Amino acid sequence: MNIAILGLGLIGGSIAAALKKYNKKITVVAYDQNITALKYAQKTGLIDQHTNSIKTAITNAAIIVIAAPVGSYANIFCALAKHITATQIITDVCSVKGAVIEIAKRELKQDISQFVPGHPIAGSEKSGVKNAQADLFTGHHVILTPTAKTTTMLTRKIISFWQNLGAIVDLMSAKQHDEILAATSHLPHVLSYAYMNMFSRRKNIMKYSAKSFADMTRIATSDTTLWYDIFRANSKALLAEIKIFKKQLCCIENAVRKK
Amino acid sequence: MNIAILGLGLIGGSIAAALKKYNKKITVVAYDQNITALKYAQKTGLIDQHTNSIKTAITNAAIIVIAAPVGSYANIFCALAKHITATQIITDVCSVKGAVIEIAKRELKQDISQFVPGHPIAGSEKSGVKNAQADLFTGHHVILTPTAKTTTMLTRKIISFWQNLGAIVDLMSAKQHDEILAATSHLPHVLSYAYMNMFSRRKNIMKYSAKSFADMTRIATSDTTLWYDIFRANSKALLAEIKIFKKQLCCIENAVRKK
Repeated sequence: MNIAILGLGLIGGSIAAALKKYNKKITVVAYDQNITALKYAQKTGLIDQHTNSIKTAITNAAIIVIAAPVGSYANIFCALAKHITATQIITDVCSVKGAVIEIAKRELKQDISQFVPGHPIAGSEKSGVKNAQADLFTGHHVILTPTAKTTTMLTRKIISFWQNLGAIVDLMSAKQHDEILAATSHLPHVLSYAYMNMFSRRKNIMKYSAKSFADMTRIATSDTTLWYDIFRANSKALLAEIKIFKKQLCCIENAVRKK
Repeated sequence: MNIAILGLGLIGGSIAAALKKYNKKITVVAYDQNITALKYAQKTGLIDQHTNSIKTAITNAAIIVIAAPVGSYANIFCALAKHITATQIITDVCSVKGAVIEIAKRELKQDISQFVPGHPIAGSEKSGVKNAQADLFTGHHVILTPTAKTTTMLTRKIISFWQNLGAIVDLMSAKQHDEILAATSHLPHVLSYAYMNMFSRRKNIMKYSAKSFADMTRIATSDTTLWYDIFRANSKALLAEIKIFKKQLCCIENAVRKK
């Protein structure tokens, strides 16, 4: 069986690593615009073939996994719409689902039935295929948010796909997913970036810090463009969570201020 | 040489552990109101003697280290004022220095010359003497904030005290210390508590989280009373930092909102 991975960063690379670890019979074909990443993955045995053509990558693939930044989804879905065959399944790993489904509907049209939107809740502040880990998904939740038009049988296959990599699969609506992740993942990134930005002109005091500072800033080293795109793609839910956070912050502020 | 430790929690216990590790000749006498903590420390060899009397604890002590919560400082300084002799040195470990010096001035009066305020920038979300680590201070900064009346020779002795435990010692004013720590330590705790409070009625969604959530919430498991007292004791500097943070948060919020 062939699996095509479109976008070979930390997540795409870790899926490749997990596929090669847990199923020797699978052929992994990777597409990326970064030839260095592709060559590294081929050399280290993470993938079997690589290409800079989406068309070539998906030929003969039973499952097509989109693991590219959300900013490139429109182009990818556009290419898939041209070349996809009736038996192929598309899934993805983006941490925003509503916006992704909108793009998929627009580009894939009736082929949306072959798309099973997904999101493995696992990651690292370290990006790139060089940080790929075969066990990144082991014991972690993967949320699938099939659309009303997604074929149920294909959803079942993607459930098995993730379970085979050691993940716990849950199904919910895209809206529910986006609200939850705004609170549990996107907001912490916003807070970490906002906190880190406080020190852009006070770098000299950062040495007077301990673990609380390290915790609060680790994820601010994540890929800024990637996260900014996620924030924008999930803006409604994220802004609602920022509002809730501000209320909680005000409660503490008032308690600190009170004589 | 005798060293008295007043308050045997994580920091007091770690100082005891470090003293015993790096200088076998020192006798460590600990005072605490928690008899279980004292017995545990005596049994495990962290301390040599224990007492529930401050007077007894400081008899013959060359250095008196206050490692109790800031809420108990007034009582401790009051007791020290009654029993201290002219050759003894008092130091402490509180993460707020301005408020501590105010209490010391009020209670110690002219004996303030024997007080070298200090703060080791090291800690853990795990409190209590059972989590004491002999190397908690190794390679970490310790800030000393001697008052205008503190005897210079005594400050030098406290510098040596910390250097012998592997720490890097810096001197600065209490005001500067409090402003820096408000930014690098107290604010992260405020943010973590505020963030954690968002989930008090949404515990069920916490499983859909990864490392960013874990980072953001680790320090919210710290001792709430201890930290609330710190927030209150450093309210001016902390409120100023909360204000700066809110501005940074607003910048990101506006960028996310913008169409």
